[in-house]
Amino acid sequence: MEKLLHNVKAKIISIGDELLIGQVVNTNASWLGEQLTINGIEVVGILTIGDGEADIMNALESCSDVDLVMITGGLGPTADDITKPTLCRFFNTTMVLNEDALENVRQIFKLRGYPMSERNVQQAYIPKDCVYIPNRFGTAPCTWFEKDKTVYISMPGVPFEMKNVFTTEILSMLKKHFKVTPYARKVIMTTGIGESFLADKIKDWEENLPDFLSLAYLPQYGMVRLRLDGRHKDAEFLNNVISREVEKLYSLIGEFIFGEDDAPIAEVVLEKLRKEHKTLVTAESCTGGAIARMLTSVAGCSDVYKGSIVSYCNEVKINLLGTKPEDIAKYNVVSKQVAEQMAVGARKTLNADYAVATTGVAGPSGGTEEIPVGTVWIAVATPEGVFSKINNFGKDRDNNIQRAGITSLNMLREFLNKK
Amino acid sequence: MEKLLHNVKAKIISIGDELLIGQVVNTNASWLGEQLTINGIEVVGILTIGDGEADIMNALESCSDVDLVMITGGLGPTADDITKPTLCRFFNTTMVLNEDALENVRQIFKLRGYPMSERNVQQAYIPKDCVYIPNRFGTAPCTWFEKDKTVYISMPGVPFEMKNVFTTEILSMLKKHFKVTPYARKVIMTTGIGESFLADKIKDWEENLPDFLSLAYLPQYGMVRLRLDGRHKDAEFLNNVISREVEKLYSLIGEFIFGEDDAPIAEVVLEKLRKEHKTLVTAESCTGGAIARMLTSVAGCSDVYKGSIVSYCNEVKINLLGTKPEDIAKYNVVSKQVAEQMAVGARKTLNADYAVATTGVAGPSGGTEEIPVGTVWIAVATPEGVFSKINNFGKDRDNNIQRAGITSLNMLREFLNKK
Repeated sequence: MEKLLHNVKAKIISIGDELLIGQVVNTNASWLGEQLTINGIEVVGILTIGDGEADIMNALESCSDVDLVMITGGLGPTADDITKPTLCRFFNTTMVLNEDALENVRQIFKLRGYPMSERNVQQAYIPKDCVYIPNRFGTAPCTWFEKDKTVYISMPGVPFEMKNVFTTEILSMLKKHFKVTPYARKVIMTTGIGESFLADKIKDWEENLPDFLSLAYLPQYGMVRLRLDGRHKDAEFLNNVISREVEKLYSLIGEFIFGEDDAPIAEVVLEKLRKEHKTLVTAESCTGGAIARMLTSVAGCSDVYKGSIVSYCNEVKINLLGTKPEDIAKYNVVSKQVAEQMAVGARKTLNADYAVATTGVAGPSGGTEEIPVGTVWIAVATPEGVFSKINNFGKDRDNNIQRAGITSLNMLREFLNKK
Repeated sequence: MEKLLHNVKAKIISIGDELLIGQVVNTNASWLGEQLTINGIEVVGILTIGDGEADIMNALESCSDVDLVMITGGLGPTADDITKPTLCRFFNTTMVLNEDALENVRQIFKLRGYPMSERNVQQAYIPKDCVYIPNRFGTAPCTWFEKDKTVYISMPGVPFEMKNVFTTEILSMLKKHFKVTPYARKVIMTTGIGESFLADKIKDWEENLPDFLSLAYLPQYGMVRLRLDGRHKDAEFLNNVISREVEKLYSLIGEFIFGEDDAPIAEVVLEKLRKEHKTLVTAESCTGGAIARMLTSVAGCSDVYKGSIVSYCNEVKINLLGTKPEDIAKYNVVSKQVAEQMAVGARKTLNADYAVATTGVAGPSGGTEEIPVGTVWIAVATPEGVFSKINNFGKDRDNNIQRAGITSLNMLREFLNKK
């Protein structure tokens, strides 16, 4: 194995019909992409193909322009798993029984308490001209090939096997083989401002970024994530420059930044409240439990978050949240008055410092001319009083629910910041 | 536009650095893969590439062997979005302002209540030699190109925009343009039985399936989905054969089947209750709103589902659900007694016919030797009384929450079936 000195480029080949027909989402490629990136290897392409010999051969041939090819899938014991014979054909070699691989298969069956079949013995055969990489998490062996300075690594497609064998075996082999230019990134999470306005506000800053840094915008559900990343031979210098640029970013758009490095807004809000020893509850009509789900997705939230009243009917709004029936009749259930009464009611009924409440028309039906689909009133009740805001998030039900959830937590975050 | 008579093959090009570095999972490609497949178009490859002109050109050039190329991403208003100029280069054309696209951008900004910037006007420019496809869900226009019998369609990368514009505009255009060999599939959703046991029960049936049909197993979150699909020139015959085979499947494993065609279990349960004019509420501790979220994800659920009390602390369980503090102390909060009291209490407080309740240790911490992470008590309260079940779903927090939600709704489904 030799040390390469230039920027290391990689492609990922994901093999499996189930990925093409949409039955399985290709999370393996994302996971590998992230692992390679943070370890300084630049991923320049992901090829997702079916379980056909010609497709695999074509994919392998199209990867000779990169330094590293990571292949997942097609290593199972059944007839449709043809990655190994195809690798033999590509590297012009034959299959041989590998005693270490056979012993590994035996151990795994012993551990699982299942009898071993002839098919499983076949799994211990590997191409002759390769480095065997043990997979202690399953019966499919991993293999490392080299051809014309390109390294090809074949791994199983089962996510937990692939991730574990990558982490325990392959990563250290890659680090030994490739000398990479250090990579660093920072993700800044914004909300409450559209992508174009954000871009305008930071235009001058963006244009003056050092050449080795790049900026990307990732809009999603009413948030825009900014990713600043780059490579530099001096890792410390790189990190210092990124920190300095992020500081400038805060001075330009600090009011819209709610967090860093992909921490969800629920986590940011919970952490702020935790520091102040305050508690939070929710009252959800149109979001139907989505805000509770966002908050309880964060492990350890129970010291701050006490619960929710999901009031999907007026009766629950009236009986549990103290919403006035005459106000529902007078102002409509989707109104400032009802949203604010829900928030105040939840704060009282569930006995907390803060409450957020939503009432709206998630769609696809139920809209009127005055209150179209996508209209959502959001209220925040605090020890100092209640405030609210009307929103229109558009026509898509799931988008409305997600955006209403994020917006409600952001309204609370902004209030806590201003205090 | 002409009709093609052979099997239609497609490739998907997903553009975006965020997909290569693992910051975003490529769910667009899976979704499109499924949509194309069920509409008779065979997806033979997915190319995921970065936001670089050379990469996009190479990808476009490598797709001339298929009939259809679906391109997503790179249509935003910022500097890193270069799909449109690259399409211009590939198709040897220039950009022109499209008045319909501009009007669409104006409407969207009007609806959202944001001011429009010069960058957004730029979004209304499209390549000259293409068919403009309106995107009423966002500011990035879609375009349809033809070159040497291959159709290229460019769509935004924002999932909800892409999905909605595909469904409302592009699918009908594809159906008009391509004549495909009819494809049909049936998905049978099972729960309460493991994959290998299921496979054993249907082994003989599976081996006797006609050649043009194939079966695939997809285990996920305590369910196993069975996909039976195939292509045949006679669509009616194909559908009849699939119906006949599905009937046989019901006679073999009917007790484990909860639904068909990826209808979520929430939808199945809501429909059953709707027919009986009954109502449902939930009381959620460890699932933290996930069951409410599942139920309210189904549009039109409000005639059956009245709401939830998410009781993430004992105080809410005691005050709103009538759980006895002495039973929490005596049996633990994760116990049969507490789960049943929560369900009975929710049924009463929220005034409904049925209630499901969960209390457990979602993890990753909080487990003990007696009540390890993954332990979840689920109770169902009915007009005829309450029943409950203990489960252990393992170590992963999100998996525990999802499986507890599905299992609770399945317990109610089974009860309704037996009545």
